[in-house]
Amino acid sequence: MPPHPLTSTPLHFGPFPITSQIFHLTPLTFALVNLKPLLPGHVLVCPRRVVPRLSQLSASEISDLFLTVQRVSRMIERVYAADALNVAIQDGVAAGQSVPHVHAHVIPRSSGDMEARGGGDRVYEMLEGEEGDVGGALREVERVRREGDAEGKRGFAKPDAERLPRSMQEMEEEARFLAQEMEKEVD
Amino acid sequence: MPPHPLTSTPLHFGPFPITSQIFHLTPLTFALVNLKPLLPGHVLVCPRRVVPRLSQLSASEISDLFLTVQRVSRMIERVYAADALNVAIQDGVAAGQSVPHVHAHVIPRSSGDMEARGGGDRVYEMLEGEEGDVGGALREVERVRREGDAEGKRGFAKPDAERLPRSMQEMEEEARFLAQEMEKEVD
Repeated sequence: MPPHPLTSTPLHFGPFPITSQIFHLTPLTFALVNLKPLLPGHVLVCPRRVVPRLSQLSASEISDLFLTVQRVSRMIERVYAADALNVAIQDGVAAGQSVPHVHAHVIPRSSGDMEARGGGDRVYEMLEGEEGDVGGALREVERVRREGDAEGKRGFAKPDAERLPRSMQEMEEEARFLAQEMEKEVD
Repeated sequence: MPPHPLTSTPLHFGPFPITSQIFHLTPLTFALVNLKPLLPGHVLVCPRRVVPRLSQLSASEISDLFLTVQRVSRMIERVYAADALNVAIQDGVAAGQSVPHVHAHVIPRSSGDMEARGGGDRVYEMLEGEEGDVGGALREVERVRREGDAEGKRGFAKPDAERLPRSMQEMEEEARFLAQEMEKEVD
């Protein structure tokens, strides 16, 4: 079983420390579980270097990032018994980017998975809307972490249970599980 | 000025011949202008090999595909004076894929570009809806090509002028222009 976290080097997603959410690590790339997945299995893949735009990545970083996206995608599709995947990058603020750090969303999809929530194209709408606001959710967690009393404050801040960010424990458990599943992927 | 088309080898996007729509070509990848761009400058980047899923691409194909996405993105952002880009792959039918051939959508974005059309997240909704149905539009053009009388039939088929696929001539002119612009990009 892989150790958890996978590294003792602190890693960041934009300004946010996310070392214990990481389930896969390569020399130039990491993959992390999501605070507020739009669908189960919605994960993020990022270059280790914190830069906002795709155009700022070196050729090695681009290759490693998307080879990792491919490897992570295969695992996610298998583990979540999906038929398909959305891979999406909001490359810059005007494209909906909420954390200034390149990140590819990988979202497992199955026929009819979004029917109860307004149809298949809703997944993209959610990605750009409040439900997909990775930055906003992370900033909320950071605020709560600073101010203490995480459980209480989270309850007051967002009465809509569905929108609550997941607990750190839940994310760490998922990261541990997905790290194990990644070991089954053969390139 | 680059020749047009860039190659005499017939190239296909899924089942559709698109040689004259191609504006950039590498050993493993091509980039083509879009029959029905969601926004001006919306282009597609594909592996030369016709396979439906990202997981089927070799490591060399993945690297070449996304290095091409990066190079094309830089050019598109410059030429269309954009601030940002959406990069999206519908990897499989349940994720909205309409042509069974891996393709990355590259869509230039600017603050407020979608306000008249329902807000920024609409670009994704359109991508999965009829407006972004690349396959449907290409099949319509193929049908008209087979049956002749392209202009007349297109007029009857879709009364909504905004939804009409662009003419082959318009696409070829854009491909020629973008091929020239690609030559200005230095890696």
